[in-house]
Parts: sequence; structure tokens; C-alpha cells
Amino acid sequence: MLWRDLKAWQVYGANTDVGKTIVSTILCRALQRRASPNGLLYLKPVSTGPQAEADDRHIRQYVPGINSKCISQFSRPLSPHLAAKLDGDSSIPTSDASIVAQIKKLLSQHSQAGGRYAILETAGGVLSPGPSGSVQADLYRPLRLPTLLIGDSKLGGISTTISAFESLHLRGYDLDSVILFDDPEWGNHGYLQEHFSKHGISTLALPMPPARRDDPNEDEAVLADYYRECSESTTVTNLIDLLQQKHFSRVSKLTSMPSQAEAVIWHPFRQHGIPHNIIAIDSAYGDYFQAYNPESDPALSISASSPTTGLTPLAALPPTKPLLTPLFDASASWWTQGLGHGNPEIALTAAHAAGRYGHVMFAHAVHEPALDLSYNLLSTLQNPRLNRIFFSDNGSTGMEVAVKMALRASCQRYGWNKNDHDNDGHTPVSILGLKGSYHGDTIGVMNCSEPSVFNEKVDWHQPWGHWLEPPSLLLRKGMWELSLPDEMARGGGTVQKFDSLGAIFDFDARRDDAARYEEHIKTTLDSLVRQQGRRFGALILEPLLMGAGGMIFVDPLFQRTLITVIRSNPELIGSRVNSANESGVVDGSTGGIEASTNSQDWSGLPVVADEVFTGLYRLGRASSSSFLSSSTDTLPSHQPQSQVQSSLPASLSTAIAPDISVHAKLLTAGLLPLALTTASEAIFQTFLSSSKTDALLHGHSYTAHPIGCMVANKALAEYRRMDTDGTWDGFKQSWSASSSAANTTTTRSSISAISSPSSESSSTSSPPLSGTISPATNTYSFWPLHFVTTLSHHPRLDGCFALGTVLVLKVAADSGGSGYTSTASSSLQSRLLTLLDNEGCGIHSRVLGDIIYFMTSLTTSPEQVERLSKTILQALDER
Amino acid sequence: MLWRDLKAWQVYGANTDVGKTIVSTILCRALQRRASPNGLLYLKPVSTGPQAEADDRHIRQYVPGINSKCISQFSRPLSPHLAAKLDGDSSIPTSDASIVAQIKKLLSQHSQAGGRYAILETAGGVLSPGPSGSVQADLYRPLRLPTLLIGDSKLGGISTTISAFESLHLRGYDLDSVILFDDPEWGNHGYLQEHFSKHGISTLALPMPPARRDDPNEDEAVLADYYRECSESTTVTNLIDLLQQKHFSRVSKLTSMPSQAEAVIWHPFRQHGIPHNIIAIDSAYGDYFQAYNPESDPALSISASSPTTGLTPLAALPPTKPLLTPLFDASASWWTQGLGHGNPEIALTAAHAAGRYGHVMFAHAVHEPALDLSYNLLSTLQNPRLNRIFFSDNGSTGMEVAVKMALRASCQRYGWNKNDHDNDGHTPVSILGLKGSYHGDTIGVMNCSEPSVFNEKVDWHQPWGHWLEPPSLLLRKGMWELSLPDEMARGGGTVQKFDSLGAIFDFDARRDDAARYEEHIKTTLDSLVRQQGRRFGALILEPLLMGAGGMIFVDPLFQRTLITVIRSNPELIGSRVNSANESGVVDGSTGGIEASTNSQDWSGLPVVADEVFTGLYRLGRASSSSFLSSSTDTLPSHQPQSQVQSSLPASLSTAIAPDISVHAKLLTAGLLPLALTTASEAIFQTFLSSSKTDALLHGHSYTAHPIGCMVANKALAEYRRMDTDGTWDGFKQSWSASSSAANTTTTRSSISAISSPSSESSSTSSPPLSGTISPATNTYSFWPLHFVTTLSHHPRLDGCFALGTVLVLKVAADSGGSGYTSTASSSLQSRLLTLLDNEGCGIHSRVLGDIIYFMTSLTTSPEQVERLSKTILQALDER
Repeated sequence: MLWRDLKAWQVYGANTDVGKTIVSTILCRALQRRASPNGLLYLKPVSTGPQAEADDRHIRQYVPGINSKCISQFSRPLSPHLAAKLDGDSSIPTSDASIVAQIKKLLSQHSQAGGRYAILETAGGVLSPGPSGSVQADLYRPLRLPTLLIGDSKLGGISTTISAFESLHLRGYDLDSVILFDDPEWGNHGYLQEHFSKHGISTLALPMPPARRDDPNEDEAVLADYYRECSESTTVTNLIDLLQQKHFSRVSKLTSMPSQAEAVIWHPFRQHGIPHNIIAIDSAYGDYFQAYNPESDPALSISASSPTTGLTPLAALPPTKPLLTPLFDASASWWTQGLGHGNPEIALTAAHAAGRYGHVMFAHAVHEPALDLSYNLLSTLQNPRLNRIFFSDNGSTGMEVAVKMALRASCQRYGWNKNDHDNDGHTPVSILGLKGSYHGDTIGVMNCSEPSVFNEKVDWHQPWGHWLEPPSLLLRKGMWELSLPDEMARGGGTVQKFDSLGAIFDFDARRDDAARYEEHIKTTLDSLVRQQGRRFGALILEPLLMGAGGMIFVDPLFQRTLITVIRSNPELIGSRVNSANESGVVDGSTGGIEASTNSQDWSGLPVVADEVFTGLYRLGRASSSSFLSSSTDTLPSHQPQSQVQSSLPASLSTAIAPDISVHAKLLTAGLLPLALTTASEAIFQTFLSSSKTDALLHGHSYTAHPIGCMVANKALAEYRRMDTDGTWDGFKQSWSASSSAANTTTTRSSISAISSPSSESSSTSSPPLSGTISPATNTYSFWPLHFVTTLSHHPRLDGCFALGTVLVLKVAADSGGSGYTSTASSSLQSRLLTLLDNEGCGIHSRVLGDIIYFMTSLTTSPEQVERLSKTILQALDER
Repeated sequence: MLWRDLKAWQVYGANTDVGKTIVSTILCRALQRRASPNGLLYLKPVSTGPQAEADDRHIRQYVPGINSKCISQFSRPLSPHLAAKLDGDSSIPTSDASIVAQIKKLLSQHSQAGGRYAILETAGGVLSPGPSGSVQADLYRPLRLPTLLIGDSKLGGISTTISAFESLHLRGYDLDSVILFDDPEWGNHGYLQEHFSKHGISTLALPMPPARRDDPNEDEAVLADYYRECSESTTVTNLIDLLQQKHFSRVSKLTSMPSQAEAVIWHPFRQHGIPHNIIAIDSAYGDYFQAYNPESDPALSISASSPTTGLTPLAALPPTKPLLTPLFDASASWWTQGLGHGNPEIALTAAHAAGRYGHVMFAHAVHEPALDLSYNLLSTLQNPRLNRIFFSDNGSTGMEVAVKMALRASCQRYGWNKNDHDNDGHTPVSILGLKGSYHGDTIGVMNCSEPSVFNEKVDWHQPWGHWLEPPSLLLRKGMWELSLPDEMARGGGTVQKFDSLGAIFDFDARRDDAARYEEHIKTTLDSLVRQQGRRFGALILEPLLMGAGGMIFVDPLFQRTLITVIRSNPELIGSRVNSANESGVVDGSTGGIEASTNSQDWSGLPVVADEVFTGLYRLGRASSSSFLSSSTDTLPSHQPQSQVQSSLPASLSTAIAPDISVHAKLLTAGLLPLALTTASEAIFQTFLSSSKTDALLHGHSYTAHPIGCMVANKALAEYRRMDTDGTWDGFKQSWSASSSAANTTTTRSSISAISSPSSESSSTSSPPLSGTISPATNTYSFWPLHFVTTLSHHPRLDGCFALGTVLVLKVAADSGGSGYTSTASSSLQSRLLTLLDNEGCGIHSRVLGDIIYFMTSLTTSPEQVERLSKTILQALDER
């Protein structure tokens, strides 16, 4: 919560009984002298013990006329979590959300009424439990008010004061000042002053309060004198000046960040030649950014005369509008978020790794977090082929490693030398992939994608491969439409319809489709390899969903067929082995090389699954490759080496399991970069020899940095817990509501050839559709089926779909009124930033051309999804 | 400290007066029942207050016959930091190092004597200051003993107990158990038990101790009863069992890590076909790993029958040898270390960023840590050309970005299209660089280096450039020898000698050399560009020192000349602009394109400085490009935009300042990956247009992750503080001892042509050399000149040098006795792991072929360098 004019501070204590209320009283008296009538609010959100002893009563007594409020008052003098239980009064707010909402409401009202100051006093120590049992520093964290820590002036108080600071600091609080009584016996003030000055925090000593007198009147009189003297002292006056100045600095810094960024930052993927609104993110919590959006700041229109300096004339501004808006992070911060922003457990885990190791060398060395992560990832993926882990820093480098692995394996098997160029004259070996793929921004993996607007201007980009156009899916007017590409449909796009997601994944029922795909793949490969002499070294796929290429839902049957065709027909790829001449004659006998007795060995081509975006539960399952498995595939007899006993519902059959897979993004719960490339033993053995130069010569400085590994271990443990303990059952049920009846009768609608995919004249109606997926298949979305179905009928959309946490909307070209598809999606994106829901929250989303997408973290609640759904529909309905 | 048989625990209190001594007494009684006579040690390292009230006295009273020790006893009942000051008794250890050394000694003696258990009891709370003023959790951190936290059972104790845990946890401690009294009034135990179970930590309740009796005898009796009952209770017995089990698990995990790693990890840059000793790093602190080295473990020879399981029969092992050896991290963990491992300030900074943000989206957004870092880096570098910051994840991706920037700029200026290939048929534009360069492991930047054993097996590596062989320097027998490459020396290597580093950097006195270099560069470029039709798009340099390519000390005058020749003669590069035909005719008139009125604009070629390894004080200066500046260069009139007022001694002239520079490694103090690519406004403007596809389409998911940015801000602030506050003056003085006399008389020795660089017959003797560098030039090393000079005379070395924190030794081919140079350096490397100094520390170093190098962090002390120097000399002297 932040306003230009209302300055609110939260008072925390290093321990109970350190003088929070005494200091709060002094501050309130001092502030009241500066405030207009009703300009100061004292708020004690939670109080325990008899009313007569309550802190707000004390404040009212010694700060006459103060506006004082308490939200949750419990009668027993216990910790609030016990007092709340014993009181059992349901009229008193006890949930974290309700207390925070009450505080927001009271502060907003105070701001509206022209309030300039507020003091919020907590109860007990910084980590004393609130009524729900959450520790206070977590309970109040969404507000992230600037904080005053009342230090402990007694023996031992140095330790408790610094520890309390550390607990606040690791939760992302800004500590404005430490205040404690100057007890000369223990001298804590001097030590703490020096300690906190290193953190740029001032530490202030107040005189010890008077000893308690037996005579109540005398006691009251000396206390009143003490308060008067203290609150009028230079020390306190200077403190208030300092606090005000910190407030103004924060506001000034926040509001000037967008223009300061313009001067110095070269943003990723941004055309700086086009003006763009830059959002300043003050902090984040859970799924929300606390963001300053210059476009919604009335101050900016006032100070429009100096738009580039960003320095706004603070005094003249309307004070009542909050500067920060919570924005749901609907791109999951570029697809990384797993356990929420500012998660204190993750922060503490990161700190532990930093404190135990920092970073330590990983060449010829090992440490516990990296070793644990290696075993944990393998047991999470349940891929029967994989047993080796290579560490790097991000999805792009992880894919570079995968490419180096795969190309070496195939070049070695097929006897290709990098200095023999194939017929395109550029490179001895290239990639087989899909149109619309994207594998990262480094040049090597850019070369794994087909030419597109994303790479055409990169001077060293050379498309090294062939990319098949895949059949893709969209939900339109309640039906799943499968569009076949021109190259497969022979004259005009052909559209098939399915009445459920389950029908799409019912591969056994789709044998005709599989046969058609197989024929197309074989014909294509024959043409490329035998007729054109192309050499392929790897099959690279983003299983099920191609992300950066435009959020394309690929028919899983097509990817499955591609893998099985190549594995079953290695001669389609490797026919040139041992053929020393360049005649391109097929040497069928060399297929024998493939006939390895090791069923884990790769065949045809090493299959690389780029699961950077799609894996680790982004689509609802640990491994997105598992979507290509059929329930009738033979499951592996050997599970991979694993320390954790686990039986995950969606298994990967050996037949379609990739030989190499790459994982990043969600791997570290959305905290920091780390990537893992996993490989089969057969791939690993390709690099074994007695010569160092045959090794995989790749290794970034921070390879397997402990902080990333330890956070990833924590993230995987949390993900697996949620996958198995029912956390997501509500989402799953939305997609399987009537599955008990329909489950055994999954049928495919008849194939209907339609002249154009965009024709929507074929009327299939009656939403909402009933799903046909059993929970066991784990094919579901965090976005309820009825909502997605409703969207599929929306006139502003050209189709949509949802998989796991991802919701994708294809915005109709003419719906923006401008004719430009990207403008239509962008205007929806802009609108969602300012269309606030009933809790005052907007949505921060990303667009890709005519696609706008929304993504939750793995901890987003059904209630949050419902609020998002309402807002999205409301924005779509506006015209 | 870790032994197989001796189990030592450290007892911390959540606050003072929570019952540490009572619990310690109970534990000691329980342990003594299991231990042999003298098998248990109670150690109170620091105690304050009268002897009669001392904790060790209490223990001796209630645990009869116990072996009890106190290291530092102060008489006043105050916090140790005050008590130590007031006592002023110099015979009592007060420094952190002396207390830790005493503990190590006592525990080692205890282990030698067959001790099985030890309890160390701290004083006050976890962050109460020790005698030196350091907080205890920092003071004892190098030991990293498993910890028991005594919780606070009073009101407010939930908060202080959890905060105390968090303070220990972020310092990398392992907490084995929380123990507190079961005070039913406040019920802290139940809450804490639930809280800590989430961290896998057991929380134990003990009965409240008896109330104090007035009669001392009665008091003693009831207390004795209490101790007896407690120590024999099932609760405590189970606790001891648990603690022992945790100990054995830790030992078992540690010793089996190397073999477990063999089964699953694919190590970077490792040939897994060659057996190699894998070191298990338990933790790290300051400059040291705490490492388990299987080669030095006697248990492994006993259990040699099952080398692959790694499970060693613990019971049968010699118990007295410590399992962990402190190893100086002399590769600075692949050149990353800046402020020491396990630095609690850095850990807390990382935690704050994680708690405030996690990671937040950076596309079209900005946050404070990223914005601050952008300004801080620019003001640290003091490069007058740079004003834009692009974020990525590591040196390799940072260089990929730099290459994309530079190539676009030159292709745009010279009108080159990526689809026009130059005469080598591969690529329209290539790199001009130096032989021996290395810029990272992703394929794009691998293509920026010349063919070598490091990249020849990478199937997609295509060397796209020309690499000049640079003159390089080595200190041999007290003289700096400059070796000219064959391509410049015309028939036989020519060697020049300099009597000081200062003479090398006295560019004004080396005008003849500069002229010779200039002629060579011009001739080469003319041949490449005009005669062969090559197109160059960037000049890429690692200023002064080429790292991964073999630690080559490049003549700075050569790099300086290369930059100035290209900038002054753009027609050497860009003559083909506007020539639509392929005739290769020089079109001299197009030089006019270069004549920009903007002096910051690039000329000839964008100059890219790869400072990933060499920058940010690795070589003693903020920017390694500054080594190429001359003191007589005109300094820029405009300093870059900066928030910090600073006047750094080594400035970068506009004439040689790079147009793009890349920074990583030390950037985050050695904690986690982050890279910054900085660029000039002219480079930035190349990408401006109204089309999104012209933008720099690069951006990793965790771009500008706040945790990296905030840690980097902290690191830069610390580095700049040390650079200016005299921290490194001792090092600087070693290189300028007699500079006041010699400074103005820097002379160059006469050029002597010697038939072979390896000939060492020319006798120049009389070490130690006196340096001739004034501190102001900041050309110095952390390794003292006299030590480096001594090394230069060593018969096992073929030369050496030191720059900043880096010491490089070229090991003579025949000194290893095997004839293989790499074996000679590797055997020295192996020896240093087990050759322990007087504090029991070894050295963990890295080799590159016949080069072995040693690197300090930026906080390594002169005393540590001296210990390292002694060990290195001792190892060299062994034969």
C-alpha cells in the first residue's frame, strides 16, 4: 500500500514486551502535532487480553483525540492463534486475507478522508503468530508497509533484535529505523547502531520509560510527562523528518523508475523505437506484482510538462489514489512462476544455500544440493531412458547442450564428419523439427528453428534443419478442431472435430490418423534424405505445446507418430552410414547398427524433448513428453534410479520417452536461472574415450550453483506434494465432471472436411461441454472447462484452449476495430491492466501476435482463477 | 569439523536465559552414560561473569567427572564484547581466529584421545556478540558443527525461536533439533513442533526445571533429581539416538557422494572415460571449501572391496582423522569468487531480494535492483562510451548478445546482407580476434574463436573469423620477456626483455613497438579484406589476459594498437560498402561514412571487450580495458551518467574504450549467474526502427532476476569501497616498494633477439626485482612481487606472472619426470590438495595444459597469500 500523501508505518517488536506500544504512543503524539484533525490513524490490527489493558486504549489515553482502531480483539492474554481458538467468536476476522482486507479498507478510507499518517502496531514479536497461525511478518507481507523495528534493550537483546531484522529482511520488508530504549547497563544501542548502519538503517535510542509507580495517578502523571518530553525531543522530531523523507524518496524513485529505465536499460525483445509503457514493479507477492503503472497515474498528466525527467511535483498531486496496483502476473513472469513471488520458504532456502556454500566449483567436484537434485529430477520425470544430468544456466544453454549431445551421437553412429558438408552446403548435419518451434535466443539453438521474423535479422542465424508443419488444435464453439497443414491435407485445410480433449488423446481410436501421419512423415523423410541427401542429427520437439512460436497446441498423435516412425525406421535417417561415396544410394544393410540389444539405446535419431516451457507441471504433468504416451503402451520394467519412492499417475513409455530432455523455468520455482539437460546412458557413452577432447566441453562458471539446486529441490518436492495430495483435485474435477459415465464411451466425432479452417458456419452448439477425461490421465487445466468452453463461443475470439496452467486465446482479427490482429490482442492486454476486479487487482498479460495468453502459478487458487475468469470475460464483453 | 567417531554438537540459545546450560547438562549426563571415561568433552568457548557462576562449573557439579573446558573467561557479567574490552587481559583469546583455532585444537586432541562426544555451549543468543564483536553465529561458522537450538518457552518465544533458527539457517548451519521446556501456559512447543517439522527438524519438549528453592542444599538436590530423571528419560534417550543417527547419515552421505555422483552426473568439461578423483564439498567459508577428498581417506583403502557403492563400513574405521579438509579455492570457483563463500551479508541480500520479489518479468517492466545495477555498473566502469545495459545469464550469453549487437551495427553500416556470403562461402560477416581467445560455450560464441582442441569436436562449430597471434609476456628469471609470434617476427621468435611491469605499460617509451605492431596489423588487414575479400563485423578482445585459452598475458600495447589502427583507418574494414559488385575493389570515398560528428560513435569496427574474466577487479581494476589506456591519453570530458560520485584511479580514455563490454563472474560476488552486456548509444541506435523485427530479439526467462541484481549491487559497492579505502594498499605497495625512486626513470631494457623463447641461457639475475609502478597506476598483484620473482627463477617453471588476483605458473615440460607437460602441472595440482599448511589447509587449484594458476578472492588477506606462497614454493621444491 502506497499513497503520495498518506504515510503509513508498521511497528514490529524484536520480542514481546520491548516497548512497542510506548514507542507507538510517542510516535503518535509527535505525528499528531503535524497532522490536521483526523489526519492520524492508529491501527492495532490484532489485540489480545482484556479491553482495559488494550494498546489502543493506552494510545487513546495518552494521545487525546486520536483516531484509533482495532480489527480483531480477543479477550484472553495469549498469543493470538490460541486466543482466537479459545474465543471462537466467528464475528472477529481471523483469516489472513480478511485482516489484510480490513487494513486495506481502513487505510483507503483514511486516505480518502485526507489522512496523512498512520501507525500500525503489531502484537508480540515479528514472527509471533496471528489469529490464523501464520506468523505476523507473513500475514502483513502483502501490504509491505515501511517498518519500524522496536529493538530489545535488555541482555540478549542484541541477538533478538538482529535476528528479528533478518526475519523481516528476508521477507522483503524495508526497515526504515530501529528504535530502542537506551539502557546503559547493557549498551545494546551502541552495538546495534553500528550494525544497522552497515545496512543503511538508522538506530535511535529513546530514554528509558519511568519505572512503574504504585500510585496509579502518579504513574499516569510521570508517564504523561515522559511521553510529552519524548515526543517533543529533537531525537523524535528528527526521526519523523527522516521517515517522511524516506517516504518521499520511495515515491519519487518509484514514479521516476520508468523514465530512468528509458535512459539506460536495453530491454529484452523490445523495439525501443516504438514508445511503450514501462511498468515499475515495487515488489511482488504470491501471484501479484505491486506495480506502478505510469499510464494510470493522474500525477503524470499534471506533470506532463516534464515527461522525461520523471520527477513529479509531489505537493500538488491528488493524494487519495493508491500508487501501487496489484497485477496478477499472468505470464507467470515469462513462464517461470511456480510457488509464488516473495515466497518466504523459498527465500530462506536460497539464503541457506548461500550461507552454506555461496557458489562452489562443480568441475570434478560435487555437493549435496546438486546430487540430490539430479536424483530428484530423474525420479520426478519417470523417464525410463534418462539417467545422466548435465547442468547449465537457462533453457537456451540447456538446449545448446542437448544439441551438442545429439549431434555427436548421430554423427558418430552414421560416420559423418563436420567437414563434409551436406547438399545444402552449410553444415554436415541438421535438425528435424516442427514449424513454430523455438528453443532459445543463443545463436546455436536459434539455428534449430525455421526462418521467421524472430531470427531473420540475426546476422549469424542460419536455419540448419527441416521443419514439418504439424497439425494443431483449437477449441471453437465448443468443439476441438484439428487443422491439418496444407502439406498434409492436399488442397485446402482439412478440419477434424473432437467433442472432448479425451478423444484427442485416445490414440487407439485414432489409428487412421496415425496411419495418415506415418505415411506423410515417411514420404517427407524419404524425399529429404534419400532424394535430397539431407543429413539429420536430432529430432527436437516441444511436447504438446509450442510456446514462443505462438502457443500452438500440437496434435500429440502427430508428435507421437513422428517419434515412433523414426525409431522404427532408422534406415530413413541413417542409410548413408559406411557409404564412403556421395552417391546417396541407400545401403539397407546398415540398419543393423541400430539393432542394439539395449532397449534404452536411441534409434534413428536421438529424440530431444524441449520441456523448458512445457515441463514440470506447467501443463499439469511432471513431464510433458508423457502426453505422447498411450495408456496401452508397455510401461518400463525398470524405473530410473531414484531416492524417492513415488508413483506418479502419468507415465512415460519407453517407446516414446525422449533420449534427451531439457528443463528450466519452473525448475527453480520462479526464482533464478538454472537448467538441466538429462540424457540416456547411450548418449552419455558417445562422449567416453581416453581423450579429453572427446568430452562434452561445456560448462558455465556457475554450473550447478548450490542456491539454484537447493531451491529446485524444494520446488520439485512441493510440486510433487501438490500433485499427489489433492491440491489440484478441484481443477481436475472441472475437466472430468461427467467422466464416470462417459469414460468408457469416448467417441470421436465424424471427420468433416471443411473448406477453410476459419469457417465457423458448421453449427455445433450446446455448451458447456462435458469432459471425458478421468482424473487418472491428468489431462486437465487450472482453467475450468465451462469457462474455456464459454470463451470458445465468444465472438471476439477465433478459438482458444487450456492445458494445465495455460489459457490461450486467439483474438479475432476484426474484433479490435483496426484490422490488425496484433492490435486487437494488445488492446485487450492494455485494458486488463486497468480493469480492476472487486479486490482492486488488474491482470498483467503477454501477447504473441494475435494470441493473448494467461498462466497461473502452481499455487494459484480456484478462487483466484474464478476472479481472473470474470475479469477476462468482462474485458472481452466490453465494446 | 567432522570425524567418523567423534560427534560434536553446538548448543545455541534462541535468547539469553532460555536454559542452554540446563539442557547442556542434561545432554552431557545422557551422553556420559554412553561414553567411555574421557569420551565426552564439554566446551564453553566463551564465558562471562564470576567463576563461581560459570556454566562449566555448573556442568562439573551436575555431571561428575566430566572433561570440561573454557577458552575465554571474562569476569564481568556482560556481553562478551563489552566484558573483553573491560577486562583487557591480553592472555585471553579474543579474536575470532584464535578462538576457532583453540576449539579446533581441543576437538582434535579429544578425537585423538578417543573422544566420542563433545558439546559446545555458546553464550547468550545466536547473534549475541563474541569477544571480538562478531556475532556468535558468524564467529563459529567455520566449524559448522551440527546445531541444537534451545527454544524460548516464554510468551514471545515462538517469534524469537523461529527468528533465531532463520539467522542460523541463512548462515548455512544444519539444525539437528530444537529443544525447549514445555511451559503449558504459552504452549510454544506445539506451535514450534509443527513449524519445524516442515523443515524436517524435530522439536523436543523437556519438563520445566524445578523452581529455585531458598535453601541451597534443597535447591541442589531437586535440581540433581531433575537432571537424573530428564537425562534418563525416553525423550532424551531418543534424542541422542536421533542425533547419532544424523551424524552417521551425514558421514555416510558425504563419503558416498563421489560414487553417487559418478552414477548420475555428467560433469562439465570432464572426460568421463578417464578416472578422476571427485571431491565432495560439504560447505564453504571465506576462501575455503570444507571438502572430503576420497584419495586422502584411509577408510577407502579399507573398504576398497566395494569402491562403487561408496558405502564404507563406518564402525571399523580409524576415527582420529578429520573427514573434512579446508582447501583454499584457488580457482576462485571458476573465477567467480569475490567476497568469500558463505558470506552472511550476501546471503541476507539474496534472501531480501527473494523475499521482496522472487523473480519478476523484465520485458516492458523495471524494478529497483536492476535499475540501480545499471547505473552502478556504468559508474564503476567509467567507460565514456557506454550508456546502455542489456541483461542476460552468463558470460557466454552476454557475449552472444554482444556479437548480435556488433554484427548488426557493422552489417548495417557497410550494407552487408546475411544472405551474401563472403569468399569463404560460410557467412557474410566474421570476427577479428586474437589466437588463444575464448568467449564461452554456446555455439555462437564458440564460432568467435579460432579452431582448437576445445571446439574441433563440436559438430556445429564453424570458425567464423580471423585471429591474429598476439605478442605475449612471461616473467623468467626476474625479467619480463615479450615473445613476438612467428607471423610478426619473421623467422624465429624474437624476445624482448623488460625489467619491470611498469616498463611494459610505458606506451610512450615503446613507440617503435607500436609502429611495428601497426604495420603488421595494417598489412594483415589489407591482405584479408582487400585481397581475400573477407568481411569483419567486430573486433573482440579479452583485455590483457586471455583466460580459458591458456592464461596468456597479452602485450597491452598490441591490443591498444589494434584498436587504434582500426578506429583510425576504417577504410581497412569498410571499403566494400556501396560496392554492389563482388569485385572487391576498394572504394576509398566511403570512408566518409565513418566521419561521424559524434565522438562516441564507433569507427572501423565495433570493439567488444570480453571482460567476463578480466573485469571487475579480477586484475586489480574495475575495467580491464583501462590497462590499454595510456596516462597521456586525453581523458573524456563527459563522465558517464552516474549516481555515485567517484574518482577511480585507472581511467579509460575514449580512444581505446570499447563500444561494447561484457561482465559476469565477479559481478555477483561469486554467488549466482548474471551477465551484463553494456553498449554505446551508437550501437543501441542501430536497432531502433518502427519494426519489432529490427529489435534485439534476445531475452532469457530470468532476465535481470532481482536476486542477482541486488547481490551485484552489493558486490560492486564492496569492491569499490575496498578499491578506495586502502584495503589493497599492502598488495599495491609490494609492487611499488621502490617506485618513488624509480618512478621517473622507468627504462626499457635493450631489445635482445634470442633464437628461441625457451632458451634461458641469457643470465639476468639478482632477485628480488624492484617494481617501478606507482600505486596510482593500479598495476599490481595480490601476489607479492618478491614471491613472483622468486618463482620466475624456479627450475621447475618455464616462467610465470601475476596480475591482480591471478598468479600463473608455466610448468616446465620435463619437471614432472614424465615428459608430458600436462602431467607435470597435474601432479603439482594433486600434491597441493594434500600438502597441508600449518593450519591444516590445502590448495584446490586448476590446470590448463602446462599452466597451473592460482587466484584469490577480493577479500583474501596478505597473511593468507603468504601461507599460500609458502605452500606453493614447498610443493615446487619437493622432488
